[in-house]
Amino acid sequence: MARLDADPERHNDPLYRRRHSLAHVLAQAVLELRPGSKLGFGPPVDTGFYYDFLFEAPLEERELAEIERRMRRILKRGVRFEREELTVADAVRRLDEIEQPFKVEYARDLESTLGVEQISFYRSGDFIDMCEGPHVESTREIPRDSFRLDSLAGAYWRGDERNPMMTRIYGLAFESKAALEEFVRKRELARERDHRKLGAELEIFAISDEIGRGLPLWLPNGTVLRDELEQLAREEEFRAGYQRVSTPHIAKADLYRTSGHLPYYTESMYPPMQLDDEEAYYLKPMNCPHHHTIFAARPRSYRELPLRLAEYGDVYRYEKSGQLAGLLRVRGMRMNDAHIYCTLEQAREEFAAVIDMHKKYYDMFRLTEFWMRLSLHSPDQEKFVTAEERWVFAEQLVREVLAQMQVPFEERVGEAAFYGPKVDYQVTNVVGREETASTGQLDFIASERFNLEYVARDGSRQRPWIIHRAPLGTHERFVSFLLEHFGGFFPTWLAPLQVVLIPVSMGERFVEYGRKLQRVLHDDLLRARFDDSPDSFGKKIRNAETHKVPNLFILGQKEIDSGAVTWRRHGQREHQPFLPFTAAHQALRTLRERRLMDNFEDVDVPAWSGGDA
Amino acid sequence: MARLDADPERHNDPLYRRRHSLAHVLAQAVLELRPGSKLGFGPPVDTGFYYDFLFEAPLEERELAEIERRMRRILKRGVRFEREELTVADAVRRLDEIEQPFKVEYARDLESTLGVEQISFYRSGDFIDMCEGPHVESTREIPRDSFRLDSLAGAYWRGDERNPMMTRIYGLAFESKAALEEFVRKRELARERDHRKLGAELEIFAISDEIGRGLPLWLPNGTVLRDELEQLAREEEFRAGYQRVSTPHIAKADLYRTSGHLPYYTESMYPPMQLDDEEAYYLKPMNCPHHHTIFAARPRSYRELPLRLAEYGDVYRYEKSGQLAGLLRVRGMRMNDAHIYCTLEQAREEFAAVIDMHKKYYDMFRLTEFWMRLSLHSPDQEKFVTAEERWVFAEQLVREVLAQMQVPFEERVGEAAFYGPKVDYQVTNVVGREETASTGQLDFIASERFNLEYVARDGSRQRPWIIHRAPLGTHERFVSFLLEHFGGFFPTWLAPLQVVLIPVSMGERFVEYGRKLQRVLHDDLLRARFDDSPDSFGKKIRNAETHKVPNLFILGQKEIDSGAVTWRRHGQREHQPFLPFTAAHQALRTLRERRLMDNFEDVDVPAWSGGDA
Repeated sequence: MARLDADPERHNDPLYRRRHSLAHVLAQAVLELRPGSKLGFGPPVDTGFYYDFLFEAPLEERELAEIERRMRRILKRGVRFEREELTVADAVRRLDEIEQPFKVEYARDLESTLGVEQISFYRSGDFIDMCEGPHVESTREIPRDSFRLDSLAGAYWRGDERNPMMTRIYGLAFESKAALEEFVRKRELARERDHRKLGAELEIFAISDEIGRGLPLWLPNGTVLRDELEQLAREEEFRAGYQRVSTPHIAKADLYRTSGHLPYYTESMYPPMQLDDEEAYYLKPMNCPHHHTIFAARPRSYRELPLRLAEYGDVYRYEKSGQLAGLLRVRGMRMNDAHIYCTLEQAREEFAAVIDMHKKYYDMFRLTEFWMRLSLHSPDQEKFVTAEERWVFAEQLVREVLAQMQVPFEERVGEAAFYGPKVDYQVTNVVGREETASTGQLDFIASERFNLEYVARDGSRQRPWIIHRAPLGTHERFVSFLLEHFGGFFPTWLAPLQVVLIPVSMGERFVEYGRKLQRVLHDDLLRARFDDSPDSFGKKIRNAETHKVPNLFILGQKEIDSGAVTWRRHGQREHQPFLPFTAAHQALRTLRERRLMDNFEDVDVPAWSGGDA
Repeated sequence: MARLDADPERHNDPLYRRRHSLAHVLAQAVLELRPGSKLGFGPPVDTGFYYDFLFEAPLEERELAEIERRMRRILKRGVRFEREELTVADAVRRLDEIEQPFKVEYARDLESTLGVEQISFYRSGDFIDMCEGPHVESTREIPRDSFRLDSLAGAYWRGDERNPMMTRIYGLAFESKAALEEFVRKRELARERDHRKLGAELEIFAISDEIGRGLPLWLPNGTVLRDELEQLAREEEFRAGYQRVSTPHIAKADLYRTSGHLPYYTESMYPPMQLDDEEAYYLKPMNCPHHHTIFAARPRSYRELPLRLAEYGDVYRYEKSGQLAGLLRVRGMRMNDAHIYCTLEQAREEFAAVIDMHKKYYDMFRLTEFWMRLSLHSPDQEKFVTAEERWVFAEQLVREVLAQMQVPFEERVGEAAFYGPKVDYQVTNVVGREETASTGQLDFIASERFNLEYVARDGSRQRPWIIHRAPLGTHERFVSFLLEHFGGFFPTWLAPLQVVLIPVSMGERFVEYGRKLQRVLHDDLLRARFDDSPDSFGKKIRNAETHKVPNLFILGQKEIDSGAVTWRRHGQREHQPFLPFTAAHQALRTLRERRLMDNFEDVDVPAWSGGDA
């Protein structure tokens, strides 16, 4: 987590000041309880604060409660923070007096390496600390229930393993008790829903040392998720006038010289495959050059534009092995990619349609929190030197589209791609994880590099503008994001196993009935399983719950007699008893075809409501 | 084409003798017409025969008719073939007499390089040729209408460009006039339907020098074919109890050492990607090792078997660039792959199910001619040394399954894969091209190499048997095969463009009606286009025909008034007038859903018959 103090602008943030002050209050409480403890650093962080201590005797986790109690007492007292400035010599003298050798070392360092002459201190009651500030005026400003001590960790003084190991006490602090509790709840949810944990439990993916790090093997359950997402994208893109293409995973070095990936992107690419009699081949790190080659494969007319080429394309990027983590940082990924080749006049409408498609997906997946980061060029950076007027034009176009569509967005100067302004689609899921779900660009450079052109209505040759887009991002990131969002409990249309049929007993008639129903559903391409294991009825129910199967069909004597099932939904006690099987079957079809989010409580499962299917 | 004379067993084939004799008759006729011509070689080939000549004046194509006439006259005369043997010295003397210097050179060569002492000649009437035979007894045996002269070509004497360029006359010869005509018809069809020609005309694929040879880019129309085939396989495999997986395109060298690809298959693999701090990575030439890794990813129980892992997997093989051709010889391919892990007892049933799936596809695509080549081990070849009893067991199992299923098959000793017996599924399409559509194996070696095991019912650890299968082969071969089979005129469910709506005029009402109908079909994921180009009505019809669109909806005044369309089928004059649009729409859905082969005349298009849809 980035430290807030790395960003001077946020010093004005009231929450920053509270967190910073809480770090001091923590140190004060610790010194009350453990006089003689030595202090290290104690900054605010973006979930609260911490302070590093060197204790004479180890601190036990259970002592945190006592420290916390003392902190609340200090807050209640309404201690005021007062700043004073000392010369370095005076500062060192004072720190020597209060026997804080680490602080002395740091003060001397500030002088010798940064040439600091004055050092500020903050006094709060009988506690004093060398500190830049800022702080609250009085500890009364901090609601006593808006913080809590969180955990202990070991940390070397100044992060250097040759230095003494100190004890770090972490605290959480938010605007209010409610905000604190919300954070704790989401963090707990996020831990339970960690995609690596769920990915293993639900058999979504595996990573094998024999194959290679960062190269997930998608197991059957994970492949269902991929296939369903691809089918969704395929249908949406078909309706939106895209055409799918399919391109190889490698290309000759020359293609990447044309694109500029060589040499600028070489470090992120796998090394070349060097053939004796031919040029070297590279694994593709992006799909764009292949798509541009298809655009250029024959003469194009304005009548074909906008030409929208889509491919769920596999790309490979060489990430350092230390950075690899589950599905979040990988070396091979499959991307919901497309490139839209259009005229200058069409660019606005096309860009708006792309944003619309993003919004449609977010609505569908109940991702209600999103915003967009618009990265712009900076005229004084060398990589942006060319075509200033086109930069200005493209940026204004994107800005207007975003504003017009009332999408919340922030601008960032100097962070554009080298070929045009960039939009990052930032989405937050229910566990509070914010993710760049995808990135889109408006590109006016590639058509020159690849010499792409079309014949305009007036017969002249023109360069197309290109929109890069990937609303569902990569499978790797998006599935990990959805795993956490749904906690592995997917809606029926996405669920690897959509329904389990559970017989009340393993009598012959039950088995026969269960197998028959399973076959009907399975032949209709529904992912249905009949649990004919020797487990008990109760165990079967629990197994289905553990695997987070959204629908359970219970088969008892009465169900068999009336050709029905009793439908239970995952995690819900209520059930729909004795629903005719044909109606249950039809309801499953409806859940699949409409891609209903039936794992959200506000969605009527067709069967419950009598079904309009 | 392989020359028949490379295969001594076929010398007994009567057709071989006829063709060989026709070559002599050709030379005889040429010498009548052009006395003094010098003779080169004149062998039979597998569609007829040829003879090479050195003429004093160039031969014109139109002279072939005269030569052919003279040949027929010779046949009619009933000339007898008589063999005699001469010493080399006598042979040279005779060839000198008849002034055939190339033959002299060859006779001397036979002596000096092969140590031949006797040389045979065949005399037929007043023509005599140095020749090994065999021949017909009399030219009367050859029906005069069973051959024809076909074409002229240049050919260096003995194939060496330092030698004189001779003129080669090709002739076709078959059992009968009917067989000859059938061959000519199919050859003409094959030329028209050459997948490279159709692939370009219909924009199925393109190959780009910038990307690399043998690496097709699949254009939108080709990608539709791939997607539809994959969807077909996905549904069939789901119903047959397969589970899909998805694996990366690369793996560490170690995986291929385990599999045995390194070093035995190195030449067919792309060179390694060598990383500084890690092992080398290879592009995968096969999917098996990745699937085996998934099998081994966790302990397996007999309860999970048969475990059928399927993946339309991309593999890369380094073919020499001289061998690359269209989609037939490529370096990157996508394979309808799967591996079935099963117990010894399950192997028979699983193998039979695999053959059944092949047959189902062949029926579906109207591929009526097929047979299977069963490749067996040979106990005296080193690569088969191990596990003789398992070889015998596995081969007997496959043989029994094939016999039981009444599939025509031939056995080939010594051609098995090194890990088990192999079945090649040989299929012939309507243009007569026979193709190894796919290859399957019964593998009892891989589970040892990869240390694969499952816990059996009795608690013991057992090695699974593995079936490799790929009924639809690779997209590259299968699509090229289907392109020729259908001549680019695909059934509705496969057709890149399924229906074109053609208005009789471009009046406002027509355009409005056409766009509305197109939108309804398109929203239902039907590939429909409304032709609103400025072309004339007739031109629009011709365009749709050229693009081999299977269905045309004609929109006239009467159609608009009654909410109907007039349905025309590709290449057919009859049409279904004034069909209500909703019925036409439903008929298209039925063609798609049932995957009807509506491009075959014997298939009722639902709309024509009133539709049971």
